[in-house]
Amino acid sequence: MKFGRILRDSPDGKIARLVVVEPEKGRVIDLARAAALHYAAKLHATPDAARRFANAAFPGSMAEALAMGDYLADQSNDIVAARGDDASIEIDGVDWLPASDPPVLRDGLNFLGHIKNWSAKMGRTVPDAMERIIPYCQNSPSMVIGNNAIVPWPGYIKRMDYELELGWVIGRRSTNVTPDNALDSVFGVTLYNDFSGRDLQQDEVAIGMGGTKAKNFAHGIGPWITTLDEFKDVYSIEMEVRLNGETKGKGVSKDILWRVEEVLSFISLGEYLQPGDVIGSGTLEGGSALEHDIILNPGDVIELEAKGVGILRNVLGTPQEGLWWPTAQPGKLS
Amino acid sequence: MKFGRILRDSPDGKIARLVVVEPEKGRVIDLARAAALHYAAKLHATPDAARRFANAAFPGSMAEALAMGDYLADQSNDIVAARGDDASIEIDGVDWLPASDPPVLRDGLNFLGHIKNWSAKMGRTVPDAMERIIPYCQNSPSMVIGNNAIVPWPGYIKRMDYELELGWVIGRRSTNVTPDNALDSVFGVTLYNDFSGRDLQQDEVAIGMGGTKAKNFAHGIGPWITTLDEFKDVYSIEMEVRLNGETKGKGVSKDILWRVEEVLSFISLGEYLQPGDVIGSGTLEGGSALEHDIILNPGDVIELEAKGVGILRNVLGTPQEGLWWPTAQPGKLS
Repeated sequence: MKFGRILRDSPDGKIARLVVVEPEKGRVIDLARAAALHYAAKLHATPDAARRFANAAFPGSMAEALAMGDYLADQSNDIVAARGDDASIEIDGVDWLPASDPPVLRDGLNFLGHIKNWSAKMGRTVPDAMERIIPYCQNSPSMVIGNNAIVPWPGYIKRMDYELELGWVIGRRSTNVTPDNALDSVFGVTLYNDFSGRDLQQDEVAIGMGGTKAKNFAHGIGPWITTLDEFKDVYSIEMEVRLNGETKGKGVSKDILWRVEEVLSFISLGEYLQPGDVIGSGTLEGGSALEHDIILNPGDVIELEAKGVGILRNVLGTPQEGLWWPTAQPGKLS
Repeated sequence: MKFGRILRDSPDGKIARLVVVEPEKGRVIDLARAAALHYAAKLHATPDAARRFANAAFPGSMAEALAMGDYLADQSNDIVAARGDDASIEIDGVDWLPASDPPVLRDGLNFLGHIKNWSAKMGRTVPDAMERIIPYCQNSPSMVIGNNAIVPWPGYIKRMDYELELGWVIGRRSTNVTPDNALDSVFGVTLYNDFSGRDLQQDEVAIGMGGTKAKNFAHGIGPWITTLDEFKDVYSIEMEVRLNGETKGKGVSKDILWRVEEVLSFISLGEYLQPGDVIGSGTLEGGSALEHDIILNPGDVIELEAKGVGILRNVLGTPQEGLWWPTAQPGKLS
């Protein structure tokens, strides 16, 4: 199945709603609404109680919905079969939210071609430490954006870039998982566009504490999540990125440094994978503009596509000028 | 005032409760309980309604409580004055939770002496990029621990370390703040022990994507939060670290690369500071064992103290062996 999040009008203003997505039928189904109708009929519940129960079970937060473990995946089929027609909304014109609201947002660096290309373009040597421990970073989840969203472009970023990545969405709170059971923690797959400021990234990589301002202005997550059972093999997912309609990079989710199962296991060591967490797969070889010496401009339309998921479309905004920036302190550390 | 979080028994098992801390009176006050009593009397509310309202206003999550903006700071004085005696618990024996449950946990690198000492011990050159942009990292908040907690010690860390830091706790959702108003976003000050695995950190710094397994096994936050108004000056807070009762480092919160106001402003650029977020000040000069060539062992007691806050005490646990670890792939990237 496919699950997403949309905004709907309510007496409380716009509110987030969890939806089942049926692209082939051109509709999304408001899950809490369908569930309330279903429970009222099936359990002889009062409409008010059914609504309260349904909203607790299927909240607008993906992280909260997934925190109830298998409930979402287990119940949704029956609910949609019973009352999907009574709670469906035409997919065109839907106001998409990021497919998840991740408690923690991490991003890998795993496709061999991208590691080499990126390092060459940035003038960096690939550290052999990546052959010993599994590279990934933590991003700030406060700026996740959904399908069709305008990408905020802070003026301190001069060289904007996109990154074509899958996002592994965690379904189970789990720790110290191992490669043989790691995929049990994955709820599904989405697309992740890890927008990046390449100029600023130089200094951030030199400092070695992870990306900060070069990364945490926009993280595209969506358009929705396809549950893992719909994929035969996590290493044969076809991916593509288009810039203003023109294909700029494509490939398949293989040729990686570490297996997905190893990446998930490593991340879970000594801490928790949490429901709703999104873990970027790392950028596919050729999945960034940097690798092709392409310069991006305001208004550019970036589409990431993955077979079995869908298309995550975003439009670059206009640089926001006039922001405060630290005054350099040359010699302060010498 | 001082605010913390504790665990209490309930018919639902142990639950988190927000407390006002009065160390000088040897007690903590259960804020939701005191508020329910206060509202019932003052507003002529029914006991049940007063309890529901009080628990919504003063939830066990610090992030959720602070998300209501100024409400916590504005109301607590009156509530404690009116009904503190009827909802107080002896401070000894209290089961402390991390003082905040941060949506995002960040950590600076800011004390000049520590930057130089740490770099020398790690055999690294201090990058001049730190004179241009403000260094900080994102940590995973899934392993925050509170006062008196045993520090989990994953077996893949050989050289354990502590770090003496202040934690700036965010009180307001805010973005693009500037040095002249940055401190308005700060609710208060806590202690932050950024436990670190120094051996593993070498490879993580070489990769340059931020600390991962060398950092995200334990983040000590507590014992509680002292509101910012109780400090005359954020640059004159006296700090100290003790190992098994012996002072190993001490100093004052000055001698920094970037002003606190600049650090907060930089972090807020293009994204959000969120209520409950904790931002580590960076380690005080001499605030780590590494800087003194001290080797830590299981059972060691680490106490961080800050004047005006209190003492955050933790005990190192026993290394957990038998965890999965990736098998090195020498040559895979060449």
